[in-house]
Amino acid sequence: LHQLNENKLQDCLKDLHPADIAEALPRVPLAQRVRVMRAAGPEKAALILYELDRDMIPPLLEALGPKRLAEVLNDMSDDDAADILGELPENQKDQLLNLMEDAEANDVRELLKYGKNTAGGIMTTEYVSLKEDITVARAIDHLRQVGSEVETIYYVYSINENAELTGVISLRELIMAPPDARLEQVVTRRVVSANVWDDQEKVARMVAKYDIIAIPVVNDHNQLLGIVTVDDVLDVLEEEATEDILKLANLDVGGQDLVETGPWQRAFRRLPWLVGLLFGGLIAGNVIKGFSGTLEQVTALAFFITAMAGGPGNAATQSLALVVRGLATGEVNQRRLLKTIFKEAQVGAIVGIVSGAVLALVAVLWQGNTSLGLVVGLALAINITISTMLGSFFPVIIQRLGADPAVASGPFISTLMDVTSMFVYFSLATWLLL
Amino acid sequence: LHQLNENKLQDCLKDLHPADIAEALPRVPLAQRVRVMRAAGPEKAALILYELDRDMIPPLLEALGPKRLAEVLNDMSDDDAADILGELPENQKDQLLNLMEDAEANDVRELLKYGKNTAGGIMTTEYVSLKEDITVARAIDHLRQVGSEVETIYYVYSINENAELTGVISLRELIMAPPDARLEQVVTRRVVSANVWDDQEKVARMVAKYDIIAIPVVNDHNQLLGIVTVDDVLDVLEEEATEDILKLANLDVGGQDLVETGPWQRAFRRLPWLVGLLFGGLIAGNVIKGFSGTLEQVTALAFFITAMAGGPGNAATQSLALVVRGLATGEVNQRRLLKTIFKEAQVGAIVGIVSGAVLALVAVLWQGNTSLGLVVGLALAINITISTMLGSFFPVIIQRLGADPAVASGPFISTLMDVTSMFVYFSLATWLLL
Repeated sequence: LHQLNENKLQDCLKDLHPADIAEALPRVPLAQRVRVMRAAGPEKAALILYELDRDMIPPLLEALGPKRLAEVLNDMSDDDAADILGELPENQKDQLLNLMEDAEANDVRELLKYGKNTAGGIMTTEYVSLKEDITVARAIDHLRQVGSEVETIYYVYSINENAELTGVISLRELIMAPPDARLEQVVTRRVVSANVWDDQEKVARMVAKYDIIAIPVVNDHNQLLGIVTVDDVLDVLEEEATEDILKLANLDVGGQDLVETGPWQRAFRRLPWLVGLLFGGLIAGNVIKGFSGTLEQVTALAFFITAMAGGPGNAATQSLALVVRGLATGEVNQRRLLKTIFKEAQVGAIVGIVSGAVLALVAVLWQGNTSLGLVVGLALAINITISTMLGSFFPVIIQRLGADPAVASGPFISTLMDVTSMFVYFSLATWLLL
Repeated sequence: LHQLNENKLQDCLKDLHPADIAEALPRVPLAQRVRVMRAAGPEKAALILYELDRDMIPPLLEALGPKRLAEVLNDMSDDDAADILGELPENQKDQLLNLMEDAEANDVRELLKYGKNTAGGIMTTEYVSLKEDITVARAIDHLRQVGSEVETIYYVYSINENAELTGVISLRELIMAPPDARLEQVVTRRVVSANVWDDQEKVARMVAKYDIIAIPVVNDHNQLLGIVTVDDVLDVLEEEATEDILKLANLDVGGQDLVETGPWQRAFRRLPWLVGLLFGGLIAGNVIKGFSGTLEQVTALAFFITAMAGGPGNAATQSLALVVRGLATGEVNQRRLLKTIFKEAQVGAIVGIVSGAVLALVAVLWQGNTSLGLVVGLALAINITISTMLGSFFPVIIQRLGADPAVASGPFISTLMDVTSMFVYFSLATWLLL
């Protein structure tokens, strides 16, 4: 890279995909990144910038100068520009918006009004809408003209004089329609649309469900405000899946970048959960303390505490993950809800009894004590059955209450089961062994 | 529905989106489902069928008759038909393939050759490819003719006489190009393509990375075999995210339908992991047994076993989920690997020391024993630090060894940490308290 002069560099960049350039940039020093961004020209630089990891942007802004960056943002689609600006500090954001072209800056300001996780926050205002009375041939001509400025020309939306969405036609249908037909004759009237305040996950699932490339976004008066394209939908679904995974692992990241935060910030995001769960473990410990008389008489009971605490926790996690993910993807829906919970109860019983039998057998062989075997086996069977059921219906209740099933279920069930498991175990032991 | 006569029903169905009909069908009895499928006509029935939950298909096949179903499959895009047929028993699959039109059946047979999780398994052969010497105007004419038969007309692929992929042009670029230009003058030469044997997740990530609507699939000789469209990519990414979530919860489902398997099948899919983890807990119990002298002298040690076993497990899970998901989405990449692991080590130390301090404080207040507080605090700090580091670098090693980091890491780390935690805890106790 160092040896290339500017012309060579430009030639080189022309042949490369922006996503590939963005992938390679982190490996070269900042000065070279600036050279590449300059040589690429504003349009390509815009595409590269959007693909870059967000943590690389502030230093690049510094080095490239706000004026140059504003030019690049002008050439970026407005939703992408809003994404990038939304993550910058207020003063840098305002500075850049002021340096951008007015029309573009206003579009971006408009988008920044909506919450990051709403349809409005991920939509672009660069779409094609036309009045219904123009002909198919004129519509196609129009697409030729605006083709390079809009995010997609694969859907044309028809609107009336009040800017209300009245229909949609895909470019595919458009080029197959008779050229002299009027749009009103050929558009589809039943348009799948999203409300501008809809949650981004809902919007993404609609696009996935109807297998469309873009979905129109309207306000409460059915006026067309923008579109959400499938490439953004892919990002949303990935983001939501990541969030669910981390929440199930008791990590509430709140949509922040996972990799690029400092260790202290990371640690303090994890600590509340860890410490909370620690207290769960301590409450269970307090249950054990209540039975210390039993424990002192049968020390062997302590050898099974780790298995007895871990087993039901693992069983609950399995059930929980299945149901939480099912709720997110819609695989566990209204129709299947009761069926799923009922089936999980059966699964819990089967899994509990088999695990209990295994543990009982091991206990008898290891400790040579049949009564002890009976106690640990029975306790584990009961605890796993309860925890599996709990893992399946607790997230459903949480969702009914309007909360996020992924984040609230884990710690609660975990703590509850720690306590329940120890109580059942030591109660049975006191009753059967003493 | 019962009261509608056939004409009314047909009118009704015309206005509804196939995805909505498919969502409503489970709520009506089988006889009505059959009526709907008949009334919809083969083309719409094909779209409905593909959207249906897979478990509803065999009874519908039974009731609708194989002949009728074969007609519906004829009208389905070949990749979707292959999906559905691939999940039916061999004899039903062969019967249907024999009843289908030859051309369509051969396409589907071809697709069934590839593994379900490969590019070949999710591609369609219904795409548009043209020789390079035809003009833009003729290419658009061609699209008008084949528009209703292919999966997407938004990309036209150019091929040479050996059927090798030579270029690509989007419909958008095509309608903006001069009508009398030849394809060879306007196509993009650097085509992003997938190999037919590539894993579906790799293909999906390529489509997401390059923000394209379809990706061409070629064989080892760069001959064009099909395309994968973005709607299938959405399904793949959802499926892969679900798999990762379930694997992290120690549930290896092997891509099977989650909700519709029987309780015994479900139970026996979970049991190996649960029982395996149980033995992990028992090994930890054996460590405790080795220290039973210490335990008999200081019974209070038992009160902290649940917290001591749970804390490091939870910390490892947090770190593990973060890294496993990061590896899957590419957020944790080569460049960031060492940085991530190093940062996790720091996070582990911070989290460990803080948690340890909290536990020590609680122990002192609860038990009134400073030495005991020191023991539990120190043990927890050490164990959480180790487990966080383990959670971050173990999946990386597993991936380097070519295995799936999501499935192998959890149980191993969990068992290892159970044992380590108890060993560290009771060693410190023996050393400092006796």
